[in-house]
Parts: sequence; structure tokens; C-alpha cells
Amino acid sequence: MKYFVHVLANEMATMDLTLEMSKNILTTNNVWMMLSTALVFIMHLGFAGVEAGFGQAKNTVNILFKNTITPIIGIVSYAAVGFYLMYPGFEVPGWLSFDFSGWNMFWFSPATADVSADYANAGYTYWTDFLFQAMFAATAATIVSGAIAERVKLGAYLIFTLFFVGFVYPIIGSWKWGGGALDAMGFYDFAGSTLVHSVGGWGALAGVILVGPRIGKYVNGRTVEKPGASVPLAVIGVFLLWLGWFGFNGGSVLSADPGLVSFVLVTTSLAACAGGLGGFLAAYFAFKRLDLGMVLNGILAGLVSITAGADVINPGGAVLVGFIGGILVVLSAILLDKLHLDDVVGAVSVHLTCGVWGTLAVGIFSTNPEHSFMTQLIGVAVCGVTAFLSAYVIFFILKKTVGIRVSAEHERTGLDSHEHGIRGYTIVFDE
Amino acid sequence: MKYFVHVLANEMATMDLTLEMSKNILTTNNVWMMLSTALVFIMHLGFAGVEAGFGQAKNTVNILFKNTITPIIGIVSYAAVGFYLMYPGFEVPGWLSFDFSGWNMFWFSPATADVSADYANAGYTYWTDFLFQAMFAATAATIVSGAIAERVKLGAYLIFTLFFVGFVYPIIGSWKWGGGALDAMGFYDFAGSTLVHSVGGWGALAGVILVGPRIGKYVNGRTVEKPGASVPLAVIGVFLLWLGWFGFNGGSVLSADPGLVSFVLVTTSLAACAGGLGGFLAAYFAFKRLDLGMVLNGILAGLVSITAGADVINPGGAVLVGFIGGILVVLSAILLDKLHLDDVVGAVSVHLTCGVWGTLAVGIFSTNPEHSFMTQLIGVAVCGVTAFLSAYVIFFILKKTVGIRVSAEHERTGLDSHEHGIRGYTIVFDE
Amino acid sequence: MKYFVHVLANEMATMDLTLEMSKNILTTNNVWMMLSTALVFIMHLGFAGVEAGFGQAKNTVNILFKNTITPIIGIVSYAAVGFYLMYPGFEVPGWLSFDFSGWNMFWFSPATADVSADYANAGYTYWTDFLFQAMFAATAATIVSGAIAERVKLGAYLIFTLFFVGFVYPIIGSWKWGGGALDAMGFYDFAGSTLVHSVGGWGALAGVILVGPRIGKYVNGRTVEKPGASVPLAVIGVFLLWLGWFGFNGGSVLSADPGLVSFVLVTTSLAACAGGLGGFLAAYFAFKRLDLGMVLNGILAGLVSITAGADVINPGGAVLVGFIGGILVVLSAILLDKLHLDDVVGAVSVHLTCGVWGTLAVGIFSTNPEHSFMTQLIGVAVCGVTAFLSAYVIFFILKKTVGIRVSAEHERTGLDSHEHGIRGYTIVFDE
Repeated sequence: MKYFVHVLANEMATMDLTLEMSKNILTTNNVWMMLSTALVFIMHLGFAGVEAGFGQAKNTVNILFKNTITPIIGIVSYAAVGFYLMYPGFEVPGWLSFDFSGWNMFWFSPATADVSADYANAGYTYWTDFLFQAMFAATAATIVSGAIAERVKLGAYLIFTLFFVGFVYPIIGSWKWGGGALDAMGFYDFAGSTLVHSVGGWGALAGVILVGPRIGKYVNGRTVEKPGASVPLAVIGVFLLWLGWFGFNGGSVLSADPGLVSFVLVTTSLAACAGGLGGFLAAYFAFKRLDLGMVLNGILAGLVSITAGADVINPGGAVLVGFIGGILVVLSAILLDKLHLDDVVGAVSVHLTCGVWGTLAVGIFSTNPEHSFMTQLIGVAVCGVTAFLSAYVIFFILKKTVGIRVSAEHERTGLDSHEHGIRGYTIVFDE
Repeated sequence: MKYFVHVLANEMATMDLTLEMSKNILTTNNVWMMLSTALVFIMHLGFAGVEAGFGQAKNTVNILFKNTITPIIGIVSYAAVGFYLMYPGFEVPGWLSFDFSGWNMFWFSPATADVSADYANAGYTYWTDFLFQAMFAATAATIVSGAIAERVKLGAYLIFTLFFVGFVYPIIGSWKWGGGALDAMGFYDFAGSTLVHSVGGWGALAGVILVGPRIGKYVNGRTVEKPGASVPLAVIGVFLLWLGWFGFNGGSVLSADPGLVSFVLVTTSLAACAGGLGGFLAAYFAFKRLDLGMVLNGILAGLVSITAGADVINPGGAVLVGFIGGILVVLSAILLDKLHLDDVVGAVSVHLTCGVWGTLAVGIFSTNPEHSFMTQLIGVAVCGVTAFLSAYVIFFILKKTVGIRVSAEHERTGLDSHEHGIRGYTIVFDE
Repeated sequence: MKYFVHVLANEMATMDLTLEMSKNILTTNNVWMMLSTALVFIMHLGFAGVEAGFGQAKNTVNILFKNTITPIIGIVSYAAVGFYLMYPGFEVPGWLSFDFSGWNMFWFSPATADVSADYANAGYTYWTDFLFQAMFAATAATIVSGAIAERVKLGAYLIFTLFFVGFVYPIIGSWKWGGGALDAMGFYDFAGSTLVHSVGGWGALAGVILVGPRIGKYVNGRTVEKPGASVPLAVIGVFLLWLGWFGFNGGSVLSADPGLVSFVLVTTSLAACAGGLGGFLAAYFAFKRLDLGMVLNGILAGLVSITAGADVINPGGAVLVGFIGGILVVLSAILLDKLHLDDVVGAVSVHLTCGVWGTLAVGIFSTNPEHSFMTQLIGVAVCGVTAFLSAYVIFFILKKTVGIRVSAEHERTGLDSHEHGIRGYTIVFDE
């Protein structure tokens, strides 16, 4: 190593060290943020795995179609609209603002022009900021997708996604992350238990209510299991989501600050483990079986639960928050079935129930004395009412216009052969 | 954080700051390049997923065998030969040169000896350079693999790969990335729309022509669909390829330059999205169905299309380039079937058609006025003729000697049970 | 880029450059270590893929349950106990010590409190150190899981994991990585051919002996093949393991040192390739078929073999070490079957046989003259005896108490429907 450092050193002798230092700090932070972006991106494959794994084989292609198009629509609509609504630069902290002054620069500036000037202190560039946030945005819609799978009309879902990611998600996000009213109030949501997960979860709940349960799911008050096509696929999905959370929470530090980011990764991982154990035990007591589905959803529950406070809850607290999340996800799933709310993958239980729990948990476990349970509750309620009503209105209008549910015949025989013309699996060995 | 920084500070007070700075810049750049290498590596799993997913279940093991051996042969032959042909240090920009002076150092230098001296300004070490380039090289052969799957003789394909990765790819690559004649001419190919993708695509086309279509693919002028074994596997493959492109294009900056790398990731992602939409719409108009296969190939088409100009085309342009790529991949697939050129996964359409389009698109959309359409066209033609003829000659010689096609009986009953003795899937539940 | 650097520069003009430099070096190193942690984490999905792919479909859910719970128990028990046994700060190098003084700090320190002070020179933070090591620890148990799959009682396996990861693995690890007796003796094991892989492999061997072979595996002296459920899943697993090894070996440098880390990635990749070729050729000569399973296990064999000396063996040596590992894995598998030791995925052959080989290979191929074959042999023997006896005792006690084997009926009809109530795959298309 020694030799070539000398070579460089001679060259740089006359350069301004301070300048180089600033650039290098930005470069290191930006590397972490870009890789976090890549990790959040792969969560979309994680969601696809969970949904196609837990969904029935006759609808596999339909589910995968939704999950493939979702990040596409999400990223494009966030670039077209959402980005400018979410970081509007409120003059006075409020509820709605926007700043489309960057729009032309985003789309038409000469390539590689420096549009990063305003981001000098943020630890990453303008482009990294956009892409990281866009990957986040698309996850909110994906959450909805899993809940209403196997009977929702694909076109209706895609239109919903356009509005949910383009408008609802970024406006709610602006209230905290964009410096709006909730931020001014002291509401805390580190990486989005509320702003991403419960917002997606409320959308999922609205969808589940309006679309209705799958045919044959609730028969004479009894809940009928609909076996998923592929458990390995669901496991792949959950592990990829866990991996992605390294970037989802780790990247939400918005720099590579070594102490803070690594602390966040530890609380996140411990909460995931505790959530898996909570789901395991709760399901064992409730169903008397070793329920892999509930271990998997427990892991996700733990992850969602710690997301609001991963940087302000210590490892002991993180284990508790995650473990309770894992129990809640089982109880929530049982309750939803009691209410005949048919959620194919348990998205409402994972993202809404645990998103709310995680946000409130900041008010209980945070080591920062400025965080208060009441403020957290207000934030949860304000975002919840807005997200649920918005999603309800969008789905309601779609229901009254293009329709949101496929025909009973298509649902029974499977969406794949009707809408897509192919099967998810063709595993036959004779000619 | 404060405390331990002081500890370090005291220790370093007497060190040469400039030296440390140089080392730190190199370290940061090198971290990005190593992770880009890892991301390009995982593209090989992506290719395996796409091919085994779109291929028929009776040939799954054979396809996976090819895709597992390909990076192995690719990396080893690149280390043995290709690396020294691709970066030969032309004295005068030309068409063929080599520099095997590093060969002994590569293989037999004392471990961890410093062989990085010459790379001081490149932002990464000698070893990183080799591994990043080797992962790239192996992708060129993989592209061929997908097109001629399900009937090619495995041994013949492996020999082809040896020569294609060891000689053809690096020699063509040297013309631009090694500082050869095309580079001197002003030809631009940022990350390899031509040098990697169309080179692989031309090889695939030569293979498809010489191997011939699968039995029963074209019957009385009609094209018969051969359903793929597993759509989820193909989706996993495409998402992993998209993920890998973060490193393929992002790493091609050859440093962690924050503005440039993050800009490249944005254009790359937007082109992928636009390509997916283009494939979706084109297939919807052409086939009147929601064709997941064409959304997936559209994403890949968008990625291949932006690869030549990801750092010089602005986001608005990237969307157009990707969208047109997505449409082209559908038209190309239709045309190939008309010509009875049977390409199992659409590799020629994705990598050749869109590789050519993407390279020409630099001449149209680049914000750098020095890039010209004509120069791009010349580069495309020169590389295309060379790659196609070389691949044709290699396959032709193999056809006349060891043979390149399995027996009709093996093809009909599936390659797995004959050559490999196992099935790709054994999903039966009775004892 | 120029503009915003100036902005930063003005701001920083008065800051202490040396302080900032120290922080920046730590940040860069820590980014690499965190990403290595993420890569080692995804190895758990890799193991799950290999085991569920090679295991029979009737036991898929059971296998995945084990593989999902293993990292959970591993991380939690390492946080509770193992971490303090592995890095005890021996006063005099010895065989057993512990330091639980950090326990309270770990679990209950105010969030984001600086506990990194002592790690200032290590290139990463306290939290990164814990998480990286915890991910490692959990792999040792996973190795056991694959060998004894399809007939082991899940509860017994989970208790075994608790003790193996919580006590056996960290105590043995402390002898070298914690500065204990083997380290003082000059034993070398860079990233754990012995400390991780052979330790896990010895545990697997003890388990295989005590659990006994699957019903119908050895009939009248003949070995009966039990076809795995999904070859694609096994391939996904092996590629993810290879990817994870970028972090497993690359992160074991314990900093982002550019020359050393990239050198390690090259030797690791070349050994993987050579191992795959060795497995391919050995199986071709032994079984007269293109045995994908042996190519896959050969890749893993190459990776395990180079793990002890990835930083001290040159690329030429790495190819030899990996290639021999690939051959050994085939011979070992044949031998185990001769001995009627039934190892579902070949874990003993991959991790024990090649772990031992790789550690001894340091004594042969290392370019560091201080490494000696005899010292390596002593280390292998000491760790081997300890790991095997410990695992044997744990399994033996479990056998005599809770039992370690499921009933013959459950084994025959599959563990999934009995213990878990669901099937791994439900791929039927009629209503």
C-alpha cells in the first residue's frame, strides 16, 4: 500500500486539503446512501416473493405482474409529482405546500450538471436523495397490493397506485420529513413506521373493506385456509425484506455516521429476531402448531415496529418492541378474520397494526425525553385518518367507475389464465 | 462519537495528513467498486433465474448447469487470458495488442504484495479492477446461453464460452475501454450497450442461426408457445439483474464520484421503469394481453438501452431511451419469430436490438456535443461484424467437429434426465 | 461537483482537519463492515435455499422453519452470552475467560450513547463488531441443520443451536480471534475454515451419527437417492452463499483496507471457481454424469477451503486450494455414504472436510513464513475434538431426554403436514 500512496501524495501536495476532505466526507456518506437505496429497491422483490408465495398458484402471474409494475409506477410518479410535494420547503410548517421549481432541472438539466449544491450538508447528492425517497415511496403502494390480491382488478390497482404514491404518500410524508406541521409539533418517526408502513396499511385496510373477501374465504362463519403456492418463495421474500431493512432503517440516518447507523442496524436486527420469536410463540399458543407463516410475519412485524424508533430505543427496548409486535401480528390476524376482512398476506396486521404500535412505542421506550406518547398518538391519528380516507375515496371512485373486482368466474378459475394467458408454474415432465 | 475521535486525533497528530487523505480517497472509491463487483456478480444468478424460469421444466437442470459454470469459466479464462488482451496499453491506438507482463505478478506474487501502484489514480486497486472486469466479461457469454438453451450441447457451449470470454470479448473491449482504435475515434459506450450487451447478443444470434429452432417451435408457419417452468423464478431473475445494474452502470464510473454515480443510478432506474412500461404497452397492443414476460424483458431492454449513455443522457432522455427500448424488444421478438429464429429467453431482442439502440441513442440524446451519431454507428457496426463473425466461426467449427445440438430424442424428453440424471423439480407428496 | 464543495469548504475552514480525518477513516471502514454484515446475513437465506432445494418436498416447510429460526436464536443467544465469551480480553492467553462487563451497556445504555471508544483503532464501531460477529456465529449452527434435516426433531435442534451458538462456538472462537491459546501459538485462520466451518461440520457429524440415517436411505448396502424438491432453489442458495462470502472473507479484514480486501475477494472468487471445476470433474469421473449438485457443492468447497488463508495465499495457490477442495468434497461424500452417514446436503463434506483442508493448506501455501503445517494441524485437532465432543454430548443428552428423532410415520409421510399443518408447495390449478 505504501508506494502508491506516495504517488498520490506528491500529486496532491498542492491541493486544498480542506476541499478534498469535504468532498471525501460527502463521497463516503453518499456511497452508504446509494447502497441503502439498492437495498430498499430489493425489498420490492421481497414483497413480490411474500405475495406470490402466500397467494394461490392460480393467481401467481397476476400477483407478480402487480409487484413488478408497482415500483415502476411508484418511481415514475414520484419523479413526476411526489418528490416536489414531499420536500416542499414549507415557509411556515403547515399541511400542504409544494415546490416544482426543481422539476425542469430534474428532467432536462444537462447530464451530470451539478444540482447538488443545496444538499452539501445532507451527506448525499440530489440524485441519491431522489432515488432513495422514490424507492421508499413505492413500498407504500406495494403494501396495499398484498392485502387485496387474488380478486382486485389489475387496472384499478394501478390507477390507485398512481394517486397513492404520487399524492397521498408524499403529502403525508411532508408533514414530518418535509418539515411540516407534525414535525413542528415534535412527532417522531425515524424511518416510517407511520409515514410508510401504517400509511400503506391504512390503504390496505380501505382496499380490503371495499374489495371484499375472496369467494369461499368465509363460509358459515368459518375461515377457510387458502394454501399459498410456494413457502420457499415466501421465505425468500421475508429474508430479502429483512436485508432491505438494513438500507430502509440504516439509510434513514441520511449519512454514514458510524455510531448511529450501526446502532440502528443492531436495534433493527434484534427487533426482527424478537418479532419472529413473538410470532412463533403467539401462534403456538393460538393454533397449537409450528406456524412458519407467523414466524415470517413476526419478523416483518418486529421490523415494522422498530422502524419509528430504531435510533432512539436501546437494544433491550428494541427486543421488547419487536417481541410485542410479533404477538400483535398474530392477534391482529385473528381479529381481522373475525371481522371477515380478508387480507391475503397479512399486510394490514404487519404494516398497520405494528406500524401504529411502533410509533407509539417511541413514546414509551425512547431515551430522548422530548418524545411523548401523546404527540405520537396525535401523529398516528392524523396520518391514519388522512391515509385511510384518501385510500377509501380513491378505491370508492374506482369501484363506482371502472370497478375494482374481477368477475366471480375469473376469481374461481384464477386470474392468470384469463388476464395473462400463462400459468405461474408449468412443471410437467412428459412431452 | 466525540470521545473516540479525540483518541484517534491525538494519535494522528503527527501523521502526514496528505498521505492519509490520499489513502482514504482510494479506500472510499475502492469500497464502491468492490460492492459494484458484488452486484455484477449477482447478475449471474439473475441470468440463471430468467433462463430457468422461461425455459421448460424438463431442461431446468441443464440450463442451471450452464449458468453456474459460465461465471466459473468466464472468471478463470479472463484471469488466464482476457485481462491482458483487454487492457494492453496500446502504444498507438489500434486493433490488437496485449501485455502479459502482469501475468506472473497476478498468479504468483506474494500474497498481498502491492501491485496497485499503477492504479493510484484510478480510484481502485489492481485486484478490484480485475474482479470487476472479470464479472463483466462472464456476462457476455451468459447472454448467448439463454438464446440457445434447451437444445444446445453443453460441452460445445462451454468451449464456445472459453473462446468468447477469453478472446473475442476482451479484444473488442480493448478497442474502446482499453484505449484502442474506437476510443481514439470518439466512440462512446459508457458501460457496454455495445461492448458487453450487443457483443453477447451477436454471439447469441450466431448461435441461434447455427443451432436452429427447437423441435416443434415453428409448425406450419405458426409459432408454438413453450411455457416456461416458473414465472416467479423469471421475476427473481429480472429483479436481481436490475439490482446488479446498480453496480454494472454505477461501477462503470470507476470511482465513487458522488454526483456522477448517483446521476447514473437515476438514469438507469428511470430507463428500467420506462422500458417496463414500453414492453407492457407494446405487448398489450400486439397481443391483447397483460404480458408479464414482456414487462420483464422491457425492464431489461430499458437497462440495456441506457447502458451506453447513462452518464451523458439526462433523466428526460433516459425515459425516452428506455421506453423506446421496451417497445423495440417486443417488435424484435415478433420479427425473430417471423424469421424462425428461436430465442428461448429473448436474449437477442434484449441485448442485441437494445444494445444497438442504446449505443446509437448516445448520438441522439447525449448532452456532450462531441458525441456523434455517425461515430456511434461505426462503432456498432465494427463491433457487431467482429462479434457475429467470430461467434459464427467458433460455433461453425464446433458444429463440424463435436456437434452443437443434442439428439432429437434427448430434446423431446428433456435434457435433465439424460445428461444430468435428475429432475429440476420433484414436488410430489406421497411416499 | 465544484460548487457545493466550496460551500462545505468555507464552513469547515475552522474545523480541526485531523479530527475530521480520523472520523472519516472510521466511517469508510465502518461502511464496508456494515455491508459485509449484510452480506453475511443473506448467507442465511443461502443456506435455506440449499437445504430446502436439496431436501425432499414433503419436508420443505420443516427445513425452512429451522433455517428461519436459526439466525434468530443465533443472534439473540450471541447477544445474551456468546459475544462476552468470544472476546473476553484474556489477561494471559488461555482457554476460557469472559468479560460480561459490557452486558449492561449493550442492552440498556441510552440509545446512540458512544460505546465505541475502545474500538477507535479497529476500523468499525462496537455495534458493527457485535452484528458482524453475531451473523458469523449463527452460520455455525446452520451448517448442522442441513446435515440432519428430514428426521431431526425441531425442538431438539433449537435447543442444540442455543448451546452451540451461545457457548461452544464462541469459546472455541476465543482461542484464536479472542486472543487465546491458539492465537499465542501462531495458529492462523483468517476467516474461519476451522473456527466457523469445521466447528459447524464437527457438530453436523456428531448429529448425523446420533440421529442416524433417514429411513430407506441405505437399503441392503445400497445408497438410495432422495431427489431434492427444487434444483433452482439450491442454485439460488449457492449463489447467495458465494455473494455472502464477499462479506464473510472480505469483512474479515476488519477494515476496508483497499489492497488487502480486494486481494481477498480475488483469491476467494478464484477458489470458488476452481472448487466448482474440481467438483464437476471429480463427479464426472466418479458418476459419469454432469452432476450439478457436485458443481454447487464444489463451489462451496472452494469457498470453505480458501477461507483460512484468503489473505496469505496468492491467486495461483488459491486456485489449487479450491480445486483440491472441490475434489475432496466428492470423495468425502462417497466415503460418508459408504459409512452410512446420511448427510442431506453434504454439509459434513463441504464444511468439515474442506474446513480442515483449508486450514492445513495455510501451512502449505501461505506466503507468510511464520505459518507452519504442524501448528495448523494442532489447531485443527484441538478445535475439532472440542467441537465434536461438545456437540456429541449436547445431542446425546437431548436424545436421552426430549428425543432427537421424529416418529417413523412422521418421517415417512413428511414433517410438514404433521408439525406445521401446511405443504411447501401447492401448485394445483383446478379449483
